[in-house]
Amino acid sequence: MEGDLFVISAPSGAGKTTLCRRLLAEVAGLDFSVSHTTRPPRPGEVDGRDYHFVDREVFEAMRARGDFLEWAEVHGNLYGTSRQAVSAALAAGRDVLLDIDVQGAREIRRVFPGACYVFILPPSLEALEARLRGRGSEDEAAAALRLANARRELHAASEYDYVVVNDELDAACEGLRAIVTARRLRSARVLAAPGLRAALGLG
Amino acid sequence: MEGDLFVISAPSGAGKTTLCRRLLAEVAGLDFSVSHTTRPPRPGEVDGRDYHFVDREVFEAMRARGDFLEWAEVHGNLYGTSRQAVSAALAAGRDVLLDIDVQGAREIRRVFPGACYVFILPPSLEALEARLRGRGSEDEAAAALRLANARRELHAASEYDYVVVNDELDAACEGLRAIVTARRLRSARVLAAPGLRAALGLG
Repeated sequence: MEGDLFVISAPSGAGKTTLCRRLLAEVAGLDFSVSHTTRPPRPGEVDGRDYHFVDREVFEAMRARGDFLEWAEVHGNLYGTSRQAVSAALAAGRDVLLDIDVQGAREIRRVFPGACYVFILPPSLEALEARLRGRGSEDEAAAALRLANARRELHAASEYDYVVVNDELDAACEGLRAIVTARRLRSARVLAAPGLRAALGLG
Repeated sequence: MEGDLFVISAPSGAGKTTLCRRLLAEVAGLDFSVSHTTRPPRPGEVDGRDYHFVDREVFEAMRARGDFLEWAEVHGNLYGTSRQAVSAALAAGRDVLLDIDVQGAREIRRVFPGACYVFILPPSLEALEARLRGRGSEDEAAAALRLANARRELHAASEYDYVVVNDELDAACEGLRAIVTARRLRSARVLAAPGLRAALGLG
């Protein structure tokens, strides 16, 4: 049986990257879909783990070949999700975690309407602003732009199946794990296991 | 906002009663819907906690008044779910756990199509038979009837949203908890919280 696709979005500053890393560390059988991007790596980011960092020429050649399930330009940088990598993992029965912005998730929804869509929210606008200003890796104008975008993106939460409020990291992480665990317990998936069907005489 | 209704069914011998008790002990804000029945209490069962034990005359008067959301006769005993108790708890924003047989769940589905339906399965037919024979509270003919009914009821699993295989009690219990936690994180429910909406400027 095909694996499940988990699509996670959040406004910048909601703590999505930290949450996704913890989820991947704590849940077995979940693959991270590594996006391609033309933006330069931030401190601590690793090529091939956080992103495939490519130059604009390589990205545009891939895009021209139709290699991307979705792609977008954000703050002047290109981001794309490899169609082949996601489809191959799902077909092999692996679950896939896709960390993607709101617009990208809308594109993915057209191709995978049955995937599991999760939105991470900060507990308040004050917390969001504090986290964005605390990042310190960009100038005032960039921070203001990011905050304005984040505030606008909050409104997309209702497009998602689940919403996790990242007030306390452990609790938010437990919520994400529960969403994955519950998804794996859907009847169609559990009852597709040949071993179980045989043990219960379900043919 | 209304609470969520969790409907749990299982073939006899799958361990549903033990799992439901643990779930209720471990999850806050979840009320057990106590059914009415005309069958006599088993050792350890408490009136008002496990069931409302009533005589046939009382049950039939309630049924005639339309007090039951569903009712059924199983192995010669009457069982019913009080309409008023379930509706009042949900309206008060409480989540409600309803432990009910397959036929009863079908009736509930007509009234609450959006409830969360969970089926508990034993890991194998051998485990099911061992648990039923080990119960020791009934004669051979009653045990054989219960086993035949249980085998037939296994096939209803696909009617449910989720299936939990009760192979190892702790793991099965964790699965049930995850289903409840995930349900509480559905976007419509999280975003209905007035405090969160105000903190995020969502109006």
